[in-house]
Amino acid sequence: MLQHNSYLINGSFNQVISPLDRGLAYGDGVFRTIKVVAGLPEQWPAHYQKLVADCAAINIVCPSAELLMSDWQQLFSAGEDAVAKIIITRGEGERGYKPSAITAPMRLISKFAMPNYAKANFSDGVHLHLCETRLAAQPKLAGVKTLNRLENVLARMEWSNHALVDGVMLDMNGNVIECTSANIFARFGDALITPKLDLCGIAGITRQRIMMLAPSLSLKIDVQHMSFAQLLTADEIIICNSLYGAWQVRCIQENTIQSNGLATAVRAALRT
Amino acid sequence: MLQHNSYLINGSFNQVISPLDRGLAYGDGVFRTIKVVAGLPEQWPAHYQKLVADCAAINIVCPSAELLMSDWQQLFSAGEDAVAKIIITRGEGERGYKPSAITAPMRLISKFAMPNYAKANFSDGVHLHLCETRLAAQPKLAGVKTLNRLENVLARMEWSNHALVDGVMLDMNGNVIECTSANIFARFGDALITPKLDLCGIAGITRQRIMMLAPSLSLKIDVQHMSFAQLLTADEIIICNSLYGAWQVRCIQENTIQSNGLATAVRAALRT
Repeated sequence: MLQHNSYLINGSFNQVISPLDRGLAYGDGVFRTIKVVAGLPEQWPAHYQKLVADCAAINIVCPSAELLMSDWQQLFSAGEDAVAKIIITRGEGERGYKPSAITAPMRLISKFAMPNYAKANFSDGVHLHLCETRLAAQPKLAGVKTLNRLENVLARMEWSNHALVDGVMLDMNGNVIECTSANIFARFGDALITPKLDLCGIAGITRQRIMMLAPSLSLKIDVQHMSFAQLLTADEIIICNSLYGAWQVRCIQENTIQSNGLATAVRAALRT
Repeated sequence: MLQHNSYLINGSFNQVISPLDRGLAYGDGVFRTIKVVAGLPEQWPAHYQKLVADCAAINIVCPSAELLMSDWQQLFSAGEDAVAKIIITRGEGERGYKPSAITAPMRLISKFAMPNYAKANFSDGVHLHLCETRLAAQPKLAGVKTLNRLENVLARMEWSNHALVDGVMLDMNGNVIECTSANIFARFGDALITPKLDLCGIAGITRQRIMMLAPSLSLKIDVQHMSFAQLLTADEIIICNSLYGAWQVRCIQENTIQSNGLATAVRAALRT
């Protein structure tokens, strides 16, 4: 259970989640997972920009950055390392899908311990599951980190072997989209390919950052559809998210993947 | 806002929704909307059977009927007419998609006033919007009333004209699936067709009941894919849900639909 002082609802330590909250009723909201370093949100401008964009995609007015930062300062003390999760929902509603005419968004910021990642994930790379659960094509929600995440939940329930750190998810056409909690890049020569997320998947901010810093690694970014068979022919593969940066993929199910230090180079670039 | 004594969380009037509840975090749960007549849940066996099946579809162990009925008796008094909403979530979780090894489902039962439906909806029929938002194909969740309902929310936000009581939703291939809050039937001669819900949509219990009682109306049930153009050539169309039973469709956008009293006959059959 969360400690009492480890979450804030609408800026208060004493508020509770309404049983009428539309986040609970319909997954009617969005979220972010943010690395907290020395009490501060890492990559805050990118996270906030994405939060605003994701809210806009489902017609929620995102709380102001000032409000969220005021919450933040109540919750995190200077020097603290942690993980923050921000959930924004459409707030309370009547019964029924139609939002109330005046809805005040609900904001929940929670504090979690930073995961204790195995050192080998950074030095040696990781093994992945290939998920049987596929992602449905919904252009209106593609790329958006909404609270409708049952596909990721079903996919994550497919394996319990701790040696598998994540699972590759495909769309209904067999194209590679992402992992359950990470985006994915495949290097072919000097081309760094990441899946097109126009029909499904979440366009994470670390993916966006890697796309922007690729030229500094002498790599050309290409966003395109890619089958699983194509993925397996990559020179190397990395997965990324906001908490660990990037990990080298060594194995997907029984398929060994080549590696040549891309994750290490990407992590170094992400730090600068 | 809900009154304090109008909802029960895990059988208690004093519990609150955990900020770690996976229903809020991921829409990781299912729900039912039930008509309460004289304090009792109408069609309870069918609702409970569907609740168990929907929970099973996402690997949640549904609370027992005894537990839910014990909650029910705390919340509803004899003779009371109302609407009940039951939400079952996977309960609290750590951060991350993987459910905790030991998870106790959360149950929330809420009481709402019965909607004040216009009498004309029953006597004259209803006009429908045609939704631009389409339903994504996800066979693992098709038919299941999960808390991942952003498509319905986006669809319901498309219109505000009160004369339109619901909106027809299509899948990505242009097949008719359902309305945002209702299932749909189209009569062609003595054939009563309702869309196949193997890829998306919610298979409601009133739909199920109408399928079973069709022979008593001298109609043959046919579950199949049906384009919107096909739908418009129907001899008549009805929509149905657990609260109002069935309504005759008179108009979808600018398309007038023929009518010959099917909804009245179906409502009578549903009452027996």
